[in-house]
Amino acid sequence: MAGPGAKASDRGRFITVEGSEGAGKSTHVASLVAHLKEQGIDVLSTREPGGTPLAEDIRALLLARREEPLDGLAELLLMFAGRAQHLAQVIRPALAAGRWVVCDRFTDASFAYQGAGRAMGMEKVATLAKLVHGDLAPDLTLYLDLPREVGLARARSRGELDRFEVENDLFFDRVRRGYLELAAAEPERIRTVDASGDLDEVRVGVIAVVDAFLVRTSGQGGR
Amino acid sequence: MAGPGAKASDRGRFITVEGSEGAGKSTHVASLVAHLKEQGIDVLSTREPGGTPLAEDIRALLLARREEPLDGLAELLLMFAGRAQHLAQVIRPALAAGRWVVCDRFTDASFAYQGAGRAMGMEKVATLAKLVHGDLAPDLTLYLDLPREVGLARARSRGELDRFEVENDLFFDRVRRGYLELAAAEPERIRTVDASGDLDEVRVGVIAVVDAFLVRTSGQGGR
Repeated sequence: MAGPGAKASDRGRFITVEGSEGAGKSTHVASLVAHLKEQGIDVLSTREPGGTPLAEDIRALLLARREEPLDGLAELLLMFAGRAQHLAQVIRPALAAGRWVVCDRFTDASFAYQGAGRAMGMEKVATLAKLVHGDLAPDLTLYLDLPREVGLARARSRGELDRFEVENDLFFDRVRRGYLELAAAEPERIRTVDASGDLDEVRVGVIAVVDAFLVRTSGQGGR
Repeated sequence: MAGPGAKASDRGRFITVEGSEGAGKSTHVASLVAHLKEQGIDVLSTREPGGTPLAEDIRALLLARREEPLDGLAELLLMFAGRAQHLAQVIRPALAAGRWVVCDRFTDASFAYQGAGRAMGMEKVATLAKLVHGDLAPDLTLYLDLPREVGLARARSRGELDRFEVENDLFFDRVRRGYLELAAAEPERIRTVDASGDLDEVRVGVIAVVDAFLVRTSGQGGR
């Protein structure tokens, strides 16, 4: 569904899902994608860091715990290297073909994790975002928000932790504050969903946001 | 040797060696390092892409030939990710400790290979250079120059070729032109050495440039 009057040449919509550890992102991305497909929309589901074989190799470098500490700026550049590859190989071609793209994390995560969490500053992230996709922003971003204690307890109950999941509480507090500030600055694009409830409750919140977006989108003649 | 009157707190000198395929870089880096050590200078020899275990893993991603084409911007960002890591872990600590650093390739290679060779444009490279090491430039760069045919014939006689070495002639012509333009723009820092002769001839040229630099450096009271 791209709405009545949509032309085949219309670019697809770009939806991203953000959230801290334990917010249930993967589950909600899956139900969001299923919901869009039920409306007859051709959707590509992907994730960051990663999304192509090469970008998944970069993801492995980013998440692995190793003796050598990864410099904050190197981490940020690796994130954007994978993103550039993902955009060139997957996201841009799909959108250009009129497909919708749902991506589990995108540049807002770089602002929240590297800009705020690692305290690299938002300006460096903005410089890279402009360099890599100055012409493209998500049409809709769902931010699954929950208190740090709840999220970390959920994430840590899943077993093996990656290089981010072993960070300290202050780091995750900065990440959450980063996301909330992004959401406050762009309330039209970024919709915050309370993710502290159980999966069904959160799912209702996610679908409500998406349905409102579908109404806005079809109201614009498929744009 | 950091010259008479040098203080222990003086930062070491940063020397980079650049050149196209087959210019004999590794050999000349080794004799340059040996020559500096003979003068009593404490020298660290390193290379890019790479220089730390993690940055060497990034190097492996950059040089491997694989089915998925590597996007030009992703390549450039990977180069600078490895560079940020190398600077943080190796180069900056060594220079701060008063050691000299000789590095086989540095940011001039990004200008020549990605900026000129891949035609990404010099501006994007300059943005990343400023972001990653706006405060630090090499004190001396030796550019080993030779005609493309000579260099490629040498490189290709060595066997297995990496992702750069299989590029076409036009690419290497752009790379060389890129280097020559950089050298013309910064004649004080970048010294061009004719690398078309045999190893001994080129070595004489390299050592002459380094000796002139040593004279200039010690003339500045070790700075």
